[in-house]
Amino acid sequence: MTMYGPEVSFLGIPRVEIDDDEALGGSDVAIIGAPFDGGTSYRSGARFGPQAIRASDCQPYDGSRPHLALRVDPLRDLRVVDVGDVEMPAFDIELALGRLGEAVGRLAALDVIPVVLGGDHSIAYADITGTHGRYDDMAVVHFDAHADTGNLHFGHRFGHGTPMRRVIEDGTIRGERFFQIGLRGYWPDPATLAWMARQQMKSYEITEVRSRGLGAILDEVCAAARQSEAVFLSVDIDVVDPAFAPGTGTPEPGGLASWELLSAVRHVCSTVQVRGMEVVEVAPPYDHANVTALLANRIVLEALSGVCRLRAPGDSSRPEDPLLIDR
Amino acid sequence: MTMYGPEVSFLGIPRVEIDDDEALGGSDVAIIGAPFDGGTSYRSGARFGPQAIRASDCQPYDGSRPHLALRVDPLRDLRVVDVGDVEMPAFDIELALGRLGEAVGRLAALDVIPVVLGGDHSIAYADITGTHGRYDDMAVVHFDAHADTGNLHFGHRFGHGTPMRRVIEDGTIRGERFFQIGLRGYWPDPATLAWMARQQMKSYEITEVRSRGLGAILDEVCAAARQSEAVFLSVDIDVVDPAFAPGTGTPEPGGLASWELLSAVRHVCSTVQVRGMEVVEVAPPYDHANVTALLANRIVLEALSGVCRLRAPGDSSRPEDPLLIDR
Amino acid sequence: MTMYGPEVSFLGIPRVEIDDDEALGGSDVAIIGAPFDGGTSYRSGARFGPQAIRASDCQPYDGSRPHLALRVDPLRDLRVVDVGDVEMPAFDIELALGRLGEAVGRLAALDVIPVVLGGDHSIAYADITGTHGRYDDMAVVHFDAHADTGNLHFGHRFGHGTPMRRVIEDGTIRGERFFQIGLRGYWPDPATLAWMARQQMKSYEITEVRSRGLGAILDEVCAAARQSEAVFLSVDIDVVDPAFAPGTGTPEPGGLASWELLSAVRHVCSTVQVRGMEVVEVAPPYDHANVTALLANRIVLEALSGVCRLRAPGDSSRPEDPLLIDR
Amino acid sequence: MTMYGPEVSFLGIPRVEIDDDEALGGSDVAIIGAPFDGGTSYRSGARFGPQAIRASDCQPYDGSRPHLALRVDPLRDLRVVDVGDVEMPAFDIELALGRLGEAVGRLAALDVIPVVLGGDHSIAYADITGTHGRYDDMAVVHFDAHADTGNLHFGHRFGHGTPMRRVIEDGTIRGERFFQIGLRGYWPDPATLAWMARQQMKSYEITEVRSRGLGAILDEVCAAARQSEAVFLSVDIDVVDPAFAPGTGTPEPGGLASWELLSAVRHVCSTVQVRGMEVVEVAPPYDHANVTALLANRIVLEALSGVCRLRAPGDSSRPEDPLLIDR
Amino acid sequence: MTMYGPEVSFLGIPRVEIDDDEALGGSDVAIIGAPFDGGTSYRSGARFGPQAIRASDCQPYDGSRPHLALRVDPLRDLRVVDVGDVEMPAFDIELALGRLGEAVGRLAALDVIPVVLGGDHSIAYADITGTHGRYDDMAVVHFDAHADTGNLHFGHRFGHGTPMRRVIEDGTIRGERFFQIGLRGYWPDPATLAWMARQQMKSYEITEVRSRGLGAILDEVCAAARQSEAVFLSVDIDVVDPAFAPGTGTPEPGGLASWELLSAVRHVCSTVQVRGMEVVEVAPPYDHANVTALLANRIVLEALSGVCRLRAPGDSSRPEDPLLIDR
Amino acid sequence: MTMYGPEVSFLGIPRVEIDDDEALGGSDVAIIGAPFDGGTSYRSGARFGPQAIRASDCQPYDGSRPHLALRVDPLRDLRVVDVGDVEMPAFDIELALGRLGEAVGRLAALDVIPVVLGGDHSIAYADITGTHGRYDDMAVVHFDAHADTGNLHFGHRFGHGTPMRRVIEDGTIRGERFFQIGLRGYWPDPATLAWMARQQMKSYEITEVRSRGLGAILDEVCAAARQSEAVFLSVDIDVVDPAFAPGTGTPEPGGLASWELLSAVRHVCSTVQVRGMEVVEVAPPYDHANVTALLANRIVLEALSGVCRLRAPGDSSRPEDPLLIDR
Repeated sequence: MTMYGPEVSFLGIPRVEIDDDEALGGSDVAIIGAPFDGGTSYRSGARFGPQAIRASDCQPYDGSRPHLALRVDPLRDLRVVDVGDVEMPAFDIELALGRLGEAVGRLAALDVIPVVLGGDHSIAYADITGTHGRYDDMAVVHFDAHADTGNLHFGHRFGHGTPMRRVIEDGTIRGERFFQIGLRGYWPDPATLAWMARQQMKSYEITEVRSRGLGAILDEVCAAARQSEAVFLSVDIDVVDPAFAPGTGTPEPGGLASWELLSAVRHVCSTVQVRGMEVVEVAPPYDHANVTALLANRIVLEALSGVCRLRAPGDSSRPEDPLLIDR
Repeated sequence: MTMYGPEVSFLGIPRVEIDDDEALGGSDVAIIGAPFDGGTSYRSGARFGPQAIRASDCQPYDGSRPHLALRVDPLRDLRVVDVGDVEMPAFDIELALGRLGEAVGRLAALDVIPVVLGGDHSIAYADITGTHGRYDDMAVVHFDAHADTGNLHFGHRFGHGTPMRRVIEDGTIRGERFFQIGLRGYWPDPATLAWMARQQMKSYEITEVRSRGLGAILDEVCAAARQSEAVFLSVDIDVVDPAFAPGTGTPEPGGLASWELLSAVRHVCSTVQVRGMEVVEVAPPYDHANVTALLANRIVLEALSGVCRLRAPGDSSRPEDPLLIDR
Repeated sequence: MTMYGPEVSFLGIPRVEIDDDEALGGSDVAIIGAPFDGGTSYRSGARFGPQAIRASDCQPYDGSRPHLALRVDPLRDLRVVDVGDVEMPAFDIELALGRLGEAVGRLAALDVIPVVLGGDHSIAYADITGTHGRYDDMAVVHFDAHADTGNLHFGHRFGHGTPMRRVIEDGTIRGERFFQIGLRGYWPDPATLAWMARQQMKSYEITEVRSRGLGAILDEVCAAARQSEAVFLSVDIDVVDPAFAPGTGTPEPGGLASWELLSAVRHVCSTVQVRGMEVVEVAPPYDHANVTALLANRIVLEALSGVCRLRAPGDSSRPEDPLLIDR
Repeated sequence: MTMYGPEVSFLGIPRVEIDDDEALGGSDVAIIGAPFDGGTSYRSGARFGPQAIRASDCQPYDGSRPHLALRVDPLRDLRVVDVGDVEMPAFDIELALGRLGEAVGRLAALDVIPVVLGGDHSIAYADITGTHGRYDDMAVVHFDAHADTGNLHFGHRFGHGTPMRRVIEDGTIRGERFFQIGLRGYWPDPATLAWMARQQMKSYEITEVRSRGLGAILDEVCAAARQSEAVFLSVDIDVVDPAFAPGTGTPEPGGLASWELLSAVRHVCSTVQVRGMEVVEVAPPYDHANVTALLANRIVLEALSGVCRLRAPGDSSRPEDPLLIDR
Repeated sequence: MTMYGPEVSFLGIPRVEIDDDEALGGSDVAIIGAPFDGGTSYRSGARFGPQAIRASDCQPYDGSRPHLALRVDPLRDLRVVDVGDVEMPAFDIELALGRLGEAVGRLAALDVIPVVLGGDHSIAYADITGTHGRYDDMAVVHFDAHADTGNLHFGHRFGHGTPMRRVIEDGTIRGERFFQIGLRGYWPDPATLAWMARQQMKSYEITEVRSRGLGAILDEVCAAARQSEAVFLSVDIDVVDPAFAPGTGTPEPGGLASWELLSAVRHVCSTVQVRGMEVVEVAPPYDHANVTALLANRIVLEALSGVCRLRAPGDSSRPEDPLLIDR
Repeated sequence: MTMYGPEVSFLGIPRVEIDDDEALGGSDVAIIGAPFDGGTSYRSGARFGPQAIRASDCQPYDGSRPHLALRVDPLRDLRVVDVGDVEMPAFDIELALGRLGEAVGRLAALDVIPVVLGGDHSIAYADITGTHGRYDDMAVVHFDAHADTGNLHFGHRFGHGTPMRRVIEDGTIRGERFFQIGLRGYWPDPATLAWMARQQMKSYEITEVRSRGLGAILDEVCAAARQSEAVFLSVDIDVVDPAFAPGTGTPEPGGLASWELLSAVRHVCSTVQVRGMEVVEVAPPYDHANVTALLANRIVLEALSGVCRLRAPGDSSRPEDPLLIDR
């Protein structure tokens, strides 16, 4: 189903139903929409994220995107399908997250990588929990301006500022396997930071990232994450600076550049076993000329291209090789 | 409390707390914010309606607005206060409506007219129910493009398409005391219309309004509504054409002009006993230059100015009298 | 095919191929996209008109739209399909119009009413010519701010200011069967007006429309148009005031109100035999909150609802009847 | 000179210098820019009004605009020139108004009709005073949402809320020859209204306008204004509803429709001797798709077309005559 | 007072009156609004800067902002109050600057750090002069795309292109204690540069900044500025690239990134004695999704956080330390 | 002629006619507008590029722009004129490119450097071919996100994705003298890349650029390009990230920063003999606050400033020298 607006599949890839085991069984990756903004603490609008991410590209919707630098076509080299949206009413977060968690879990159980298009970040609870069901030990690599480890959201357990606390509290993810990159600003408070420290979370504030270099941080994160059987990649679009992603709910100046995030996502996916993924907090009413949604679209493509690379280990070419030599 | 953004009172009127009986007891009218958009079926954003309606005016925020045509100052002639927002989490509609209904009921019990700034139209359930508690028999005059009498909203009882059905089903409002003006478009379906007819609702589609004239319709409505002890006035901003109110969640072309609505609201309030009121569905992310929020602001002022007129029955002047003669 | 962006059908109606005679043969109406803006004299952008008109509605894309006032469901009572877009490169107007004319002609030949979503108004040449092929005598009812009877467009025969001259010059439409409503502004020059007068065109400038009343004009037009076997309805969205349709290429202040146009279109289609139709000049880059595209969407629905009424002559109800009485 | 941005003339008419007596002496009308927004009480931006009004049209900038209904070409039938902008620093209102008043006075002294493109409405002081210098007795016809008769503007004599008081206090215009149409909203206060009444100003609030009809009001105004030797026409774009003119500094809902204003301006200019004119309060930063600036452009054209009609009294045609009959 | 719009305090900190010596005497920092855009040479709109900077944050307005990297809460660790706006009429720059200078001087005399929210950059004259009154020797660190050392502004001494010349000419600041960072583009002319050189100003054009590195420049500047008793920090938001700050009056491509500016401001304030500060040229009408205003808000917070660090010299932690280790 | 809108010259430089040999013969550089968007594959709007690039600057339009870092005034040190627009109907690409090619060829033949303001990138065919006619051996330095070496554009030879293939196929430019910088994304397909490799094109994908450094790439490119008699510089604005240039037709995230492009263009022009240039794909309808057009304006100024430097070889100063030392 499509929750808001007409039925559109991600860049023209095949559309299959979430309960069509046969179709899904043969797939590597499934795009799934989570059009939910009931968990936002400020600007709503992320409910239109899935359709904007699916449909902001300028090229034909033909289910093919040959990657210029990596020489893979993630939509052809992998079997990628779109299972449409989960119906997630904004007004009942437990119902909404329950449905999403079930759908994501279904995909993971079939060894299909769920790629969830948010939606606000409260969906991480469902996405991580649902993916985790398939694996004994899963790490999370989390790009975000905010730690999302708050205790309560308007007095409630779920919301876009609390999911990372919930999955650690639940025992789904161990704190020392939780890697956060790009944090900054004036949140959370010291008590929450103390809780995070006690969980042994690995959180890289932007000053440390810029001081040590993003490459060094990523190497450190990937080396540690590799020790888990699976990795879940969570990308909150507000990890980049508002210049690159104005269309989001709680922007925080001073973020990564688009090229840093694209490269980082590609690197993570071509290095560790990403078995689930989400791109969240794209809020189209605040976007301009679709640039935020288009960036989110490219994050998905870079991630899947990275997965292709990882699955073709014999390929000794490097992305930075000259474009027009024989490969 | 203010749910999103800084604390601002409606045009600079005094700010009092909802539980301050003393301050409220001396008041005629209380502005109350309902920053809720969890009940929308399409575009969210109405959560920012209250702050936009409070703060879109170009004149000083001095708690005074002398009405040019009516020669009243609704913010001075009436004792008007602002009780801030009710905390209404988008993700839990029952909790949210419960809190709002309680707050509105509190005001009504103190004989204070609640003027609720929405928020999406699902709040009508709380606003009407809360106000009704004070009266034995209450009519509803409802300006809207949509009947809002749907049975279910994404499978649920509450939402911005269902509140009018709920208050009739509950027995709060009798169908024949429910007056709808400005309906149009392609909703609801025949089954719902049949239910409405069975309730003996009085619903005026826009074609009938234009054919008979809005004045004639209003006369008919006011004559009937006057038979109730109290009237609740519900104004969904989408009753006007999208040209006048682009900043709304589910626009429908072909609506009233702004001047028709302003005049109609003034007329109703100066004719029947309006004891509660709401202005809903202002969605600032879709507005331009604040024109929609400003129109909603004026709807409140026209309504209160009408109330002033009704309470000064000795005044024989008419709004259409020349401006600069002795009155 | 879809020329720009993902494949979307008009409000969720079935999508069939233009060369699928079997599917088309059973249809009453076919929506067809003409994503062409190569013929504009000023702002381009109308190439995105078809997708915006198809996808701007706030309700579910379920192929059903029950008309509140008319009690018909134009998408269900008629067999309506969407044949996608014609590939119309902006850079070769003759090629583009040729392809469109052929597609429209195909539909007309099968007795399917083509409803063309523009695109700039240069497409009228193809739409009128293509539809005309099926009929011996066709009238045109044309709502527009501009007469579109210019002789040359940047020195060329085709363009959005010349199509109405071309179809008269070609002998396709006789001047006295060409009815224009809503003209205004500062174009064309006296020589062109003289040519129009010689063709005996019936052109109603907005001052005359307001002086005599739109109803009287429409009665006059319909009485005359009814003498033709078929009528083609051409609606340039700029016939309404820019307040109602900012998203257009060459706006002209002082136009009709949205409600006037919607009602007029409904009236024409429920009165004379409209056998082809176009809605043109929606330019999404200049729109705000999709209000122009939504108005165009409603123009199509009102037109088809009018067609339904015309085909059910036994129905004695009137649109202005009370909504909730038995019909 | 051009104060902000490149040199552009109104629709391509000749550009002459304000001190070129020879060129000006042969002219009927001079367009003059007053790019001043230092007098605004809320939103600034009107400094860009002149360039937006000059350059928002979609047709070629060829110095010709044949009026469809009136069959005149105001830019050809009259000798119309553009004298560029007056340098009016925002930060020194007395200096700015002094310069403008001198320039307007120069034009009037040469029997050239000044058409001033604002700029905020504080310029009315200079425009009226400057034009008045040429005549013994001048009336003012003033379309506006606001009376602009305030006593002080942030404690100062000049500003966009006070000019009409100043010109009456100065004795430039007698109160009973000051006609205001379209006033509405919540300003000014009773003391100011009492002052206005004492001056015997003729001010028509919008409720009276709608009750009696704009035509009746205009007839009354023109009959009275005709008794003066000359008339100054002041059009504040906010007299129309914000739907038609969002790009303005202090919008007030419930205004005239664009077609009402265009027709009224045309009527006034074809009925009484308009010897000076201003169009003010176009604030491009708040406009959308240039619709406000385009409306202001048309107000100028309608006014000049009306002047053409007045100067050709032998023409017995009426604007509402059929377009394509011999005239 | 609040000059435009409702009363709002910076992120919910206490609001005190500028003449309340008692309240101010106990304060470390006072936020003060300078809503003035009468000094702009192109786009106006900066009058709305103060309210936008105060109210663009997405988090609760609770007067607390714990800095993630520095582990200080600038709004709690310092005693910070908001004294509202100075009434600064756009139309009288000398009056406006006089009032502001007096208010800033009052604060400085009480040893309260004035943090002025502009407003256009002409206010620097008042801000620097007012702050300087308290100190014998003050340096200025100035981030800007423009040197603002022009001689005249539309023929006048004050304006947003001239303040830096005025304070040097007046002898308030010695040229060699004036440090400018980020200059670029095509202004000023060689004569002005020669004047600057004669004053021995230290101006770093962006090419030099990028060539040597911003860190090296800052070290050089801080080492020199430290020799003064006090430092005034002037931040023109247009020092960053328009991508990061589109909402400004005279953007110049090729500027700093947001992260560079935030880090530089933090560095300066934690290194030298900043005793006064301004953030100017935020022009909300040209902003998108409030990103420019939000950046300005963060500049204030980073500056105050830096001040906190400087006042806690015992703290040996560094901003780039890992986030979750004991500090 | 000016194709759309009023006549405006680039920053106030003299306007001469393209066929005025005398005026042109004395010129070094001619700005020429190519208002064509008929060749776009997605968003149109680039037809308004020329006027936006000419008129987006905030400074006076006085034909002077002293470069702060280089100490040249490109508009004064070179003889620069503006020849207006070529009339390029969107609907006939061959006609349009033919006219442009002829105009560019005229300029080149007179040893005037053509600086073409696009328009979409299909114009490169005319610009390169036209310029090439004057030289025996010309290299192309091409900044772009896309290689523009596609074979067909909607089945046709010309379009904005194919010009670079055409000029190589025609033998105008040898593949090994074609240098592309900034390519990225998911286009073109491997077959096209293979064709490019066979032509021995030198194409630098963004990953290689970031890995090796833009400086190293530029050195390599300039060293090679210098071997040709002349260089044509083609700058597609989409080579920068959408954050810096949202106003373009086919944005691709992950691009260069504005400062990288400005510096690179300056470097190329001050190093090799640039004898023709184009800046393309600025699409104003998608721009915000004119930031994209302003960047394009600066690209022209940086290029011309670079040309000035190259022609003054005695100047030993470097752009990164301190601003205020004697030079």
